[in-house]
Amino acid sequence: MTDSWVNSAERIGADLHVELAGSGSRRAALIRALRAAVQDGRLAPGTRLPPYRSLAADLGLARNTVADAYAELVAEGWLTARQGSGTRVAPRAEPPRPARAPKKVPRRAAAPAHNLMQGQPDAGSFPRGAWLSAARRALNTAPNEAFGPGDPQGRIELRRALAGYLARVRGVRTTPDRIVICSGFGHALRLLFGGQVLHGPLAVESYGLPFHRSLLAEAGVRTVPIGLDEQGARVAELTEGRERRERSDRSDRSDRSEGSGGLEGLEGSEGSEGSDGCEREVRGAARAALKGVRAVLLTPAHQFPTGGPLHPERRAAVVDWARARGRVILEDDYDGEFRYDREPVGAVQGLDPERVVYLGSVSKSLSPAVRLGWMVLPEQLVDPVLAAKGQREAWASVLDQLTLADLIESGGYDRHVRRMRQRYRARRDQLLAALDEHAPHITAAGIAAGLHAVLRLPPGTERAVLKATAWQGIALDGLAAYRHPDATMPGQDGLVVGYATPPDHAYQAALEALCRALPPTP
Amino acid sequence: MTDSWVNSAERIGADLHVELAGSGSRRAALIRALRAAVQDGRLAPGTRLPPYRSLAADLGLARNTVADAYAELVAEGWLTARQGSGTRVAPRAEPPRPARAPKKVPRRAAAPAHNLMQGQPDAGSFPRGAWLSAARRALNTAPNEAFGPGDPQGRIELRRALAGYLARVRGVRTTPDRIVICSGFGHALRLLFGGQVLHGPLAVESYGLPFHRSLLAEAGVRTVPIGLDEQGARVAELTEGRERRERSDRSDRSDRSEGSGGLEGLEGSEGSEGSDGCEREVRGAARAALKGVRAVLLTPAHQFPTGGPLHPERRAAVVDWARARGRVILEDDYDGEFRYDREPVGAVQGLDPERVVYLGSVSKSLSPAVRLGWMVLPEQLVDPVLAAKGQREAWASVLDQLTLADLIESGGYDRHVRRMRQRYRARRDQLLAALDEHAPHITAAGIAAGLHAVLRLPPGTERAVLKATAWQGIALDGLAAYRHPDATMPGQDGLVVGYATPPDHAYQAALEALCRALPPTP
Repeated sequence: MTDSWVNSAERIGADLHVELAGSGSRRAALIRALRAAVQDGRLAPGTRLPPYRSLAADLGLARNTVADAYAELVAEGWLTARQGSGTRVAPRAEPPRPARAPKKVPRRAAAPAHNLMQGQPDAGSFPRGAWLSAARRALNTAPNEAFGPGDPQGRIELRRALAGYLARVRGVRTTPDRIVICSGFGHALRLLFGGQVLHGPLAVESYGLPFHRSLLAEAGVRTVPIGLDEQGARVAELTEGRERRERSDRSDRSDRSEGSGGLEGLEGSEGSEGSDGCEREVRGAARAALKGVRAVLLTPAHQFPTGGPLHPERRAAVVDWARARGRVILEDDYDGEFRYDREPVGAVQGLDPERVVYLGSVSKSLSPAVRLGWMVLPEQLVDPVLAAKGQREAWASVLDQLTLADLIESGGYDRHVRRMRQRYRARRDQLLAALDEHAPHITAAGIAAGLHAVLRLPPGTERAVLKATAWQGIALDGLAAYRHPDATMPGQDGLVVGYATPPDHAYQAALEALCRALPPTP
Repeated sequence: MTDSWVNSAERIGADLHVELAGSGSRRAALIRALRAAVQDGRLAPGTRLPPYRSLAADLGLARNTVADAYAELVAEGWLTARQGSGTRVAPRAEPPRPARAPKKVPRRAAAPAHNLMQGQPDAGSFPRGAWLSAARRALNTAPNEAFGPGDPQGRIELRRALAGYLARVRGVRTTPDRIVICSGFGHALRLLFGGQVLHGPLAVESYGLPFHRSLLAEAGVRTVPIGLDEQGARVAELTEGRERRERSDRSDRSDRSEGSGGLEGLEGSEGSEGSDGCEREVRGAARAALKGVRAVLLTPAHQFPTGGPLHPERRAAVVDWARARGRVILEDDYDGEFRYDREPVGAVQGLDPERVVYLGSVSKSLSPAVRLGWMVLPEQLVDPVLAAKGQREAWASVLDQLTLADLIESGGYDRHVRRMRQRYRARRDQLLAALDEHAPHITAAGIAAGLHAVLRLPPGTERAVLKATAWQGIALDGLAAYRHPDATMPGQDGLVVGYATPPDHAYQAALEALCRALPPTP
């Protein structure tokens, strides 16, 4: 009986507040108390613990209870027991580190006074009540197997609901077995390209989301920009690049022989092509880069971020290109439900379901927090995508999938979208009214649809205006942030104003700050 | 006025059931009807549509309404309008493909009569009511920002709840800022190794989940097996491999110079090592392969699938190895909450939080359908993991995260785990009773914990017994399915019986079928 264990025993009984009368067995309580004392350093490494009978007497416990507790903690590695040397605190149980110091660089910049960043729906409008009602119905009626290992393709309830919804609202032609549920647009890109279902190079619009380009770069996919004008993406550049190549380089087929895309075999004869005066401007270098692209990523309903729909002739032309060449169109329908001044433009997918991968999500319509998206696939791509996803990769929450299916089938999703359409249209009108009053020389583009507008700025002024908006405490991007680094089309100056982002009460003040930052009337 | 458009107009008015009195505008109804007719081939490509005024008169509409509808469908690409040639169905709108033929090979094998596959909790026991109550509380109290873009680290509410829960139940020492939420164990492996946070080669137990090995192989990580015995993983092999290498190959440090793992710099002096008679068996080749492993993946609480806990001395030894070498231990605590005959063995992580990556999920405790898991990280790995995850990769549903946080804080999670522990213990006891009665010569291992047991079989009989179980309509695996292809330890024959999987009403019949398939008393 040394001082060391007597002190320990005292500490165990006193300082450590062993609540032997608490819930659970006294043995469990003793284990917890001793473990905690070792964890937080009150019992230092090497400290010898009192013999069973002594501690048992001190604490009014049976000797076996203490012996069991010691044995348990030896089993867990907190204590060591050696014949003849008693039970000691294990040498490796070090005292806890001090609480982690706060980061020097905060992970997110301090919140700006006014948030007009594009890309988010109004977070305050999430339909909590409707979602909970749908969740209750969905969880109460789901079969038990729904709580087992998931189908990587996604719940059939949701795929069925989406097939109907997308046909009705977006003119998408599909069946539930062509739909694969994923966690959003980024996840879809990762599966398609990271999973070797599709291969680069990939043509993209000269202005687009840098996040998508970096995802693609990570997957080793080269992106090649095509130009934009007031009719949308200049898809004829796809053909011009190709024609040039066919003329100058007919024997070089190396960049088409790799890869095993199921659609590669379908290359056919040259399709007739609508042509378009603007393409003449494209430089030879860009044309050369476009040769051999194997897919094109477009935002046909509402070019992101510049705002217009793809012209009908170009919709036709790009489908013709994909058919004639055995290529794939990726249709990013990120906000196709939000149109204000006309009927929705149907999805390009409806023109040829075997050539278009249609991609959508609830990130704009409900919330990015739900992490649910979908791919509508050509028949030949369904199995390759599922192979890339793998049996155990059903990453989208089944509970959310069942809930969304119910929300769509019950009409709650439509009601929410209609309500948000009205709200966002009012936001847009408020923006236009503010411009009208305070900056009538600034025109807004892309205003027929979506959750953002582009304010056109005089050439060369974007950086200065962004300094002024930052000075006003406004978070927003200029068009330059979205420009592809290899783009050859003339640069455009503008501000991308996300009018869905701020809460209602903060919106008018954000608009006033914005107008103060705009260049004065010339 | 040709026959062609008259027929079309008739079809539009009659067969197509244009519901102009339905919901929405008459113009929208007409657009829908025409679009549908083109989509499903009733209006063939090239068909000329009637002039506005004729169709307007037929259908009792204003002429402008028809003109608008045509213009919309031209904009969508369904129709083409050319000066002097009227409006026609666009040539590329092909008739729909016939419904997809059913797959020749079904994606999942037909359901067996009795499912004793390991790996799933009882799907019928998902706590629907408790989950819905937690969801209601969580959604009703969540701040609006919860529905905005997520924090890739995971919701603070859940990380806070987990830090408390894991400390209390598993002896994990952590703070919320060391926890990163993910979608399950597989996602964690992908982030750690695919994201270049950790590097191979990785030592793994000779028996383990093939899914994990294939995930690692996809990420380019070589796995090297270490042996198992009745005391768990023979972690001394890590040191022996290393010592041998240090002796024979001291100048070759190439495989340590790559990579930038934050823990690499901490390599220290040789730690003292408990040794263990069994390791003598390890062959030289295996020892050589173990040299230079940079991390080890273990299932210390309940070796998967063979069943024992890691011996206390080995827990200590592997932590010493990791410290002395600057290596990392990955602790897969896949079913640590389910122990039946003793207090839970605490997590190895508690011995040294700076050396152990602790990994857990709700896949066994609640349901794999929830897709929620967590990593508890050494401080130095938090930022690298977040960098690998990326700002936009918050793939775990925020709604589920908030709900689980509430379920834990409200005690509902503990209640569910307790209830399931009782249920699974009863299942296990039922299995043991059945064996006792019908196959007393077969011993069950790994029965102190978890959702599965291993029935030991006489050497060389596993394949024959698996044939017999298949004949009885039982889905289950033999031990061989879990063996690492490079394992050098002697093979073991056994059946891995997942006793949590079947629904209650089917369990007794499954056990009876199982006993019929076991080898007769010798």
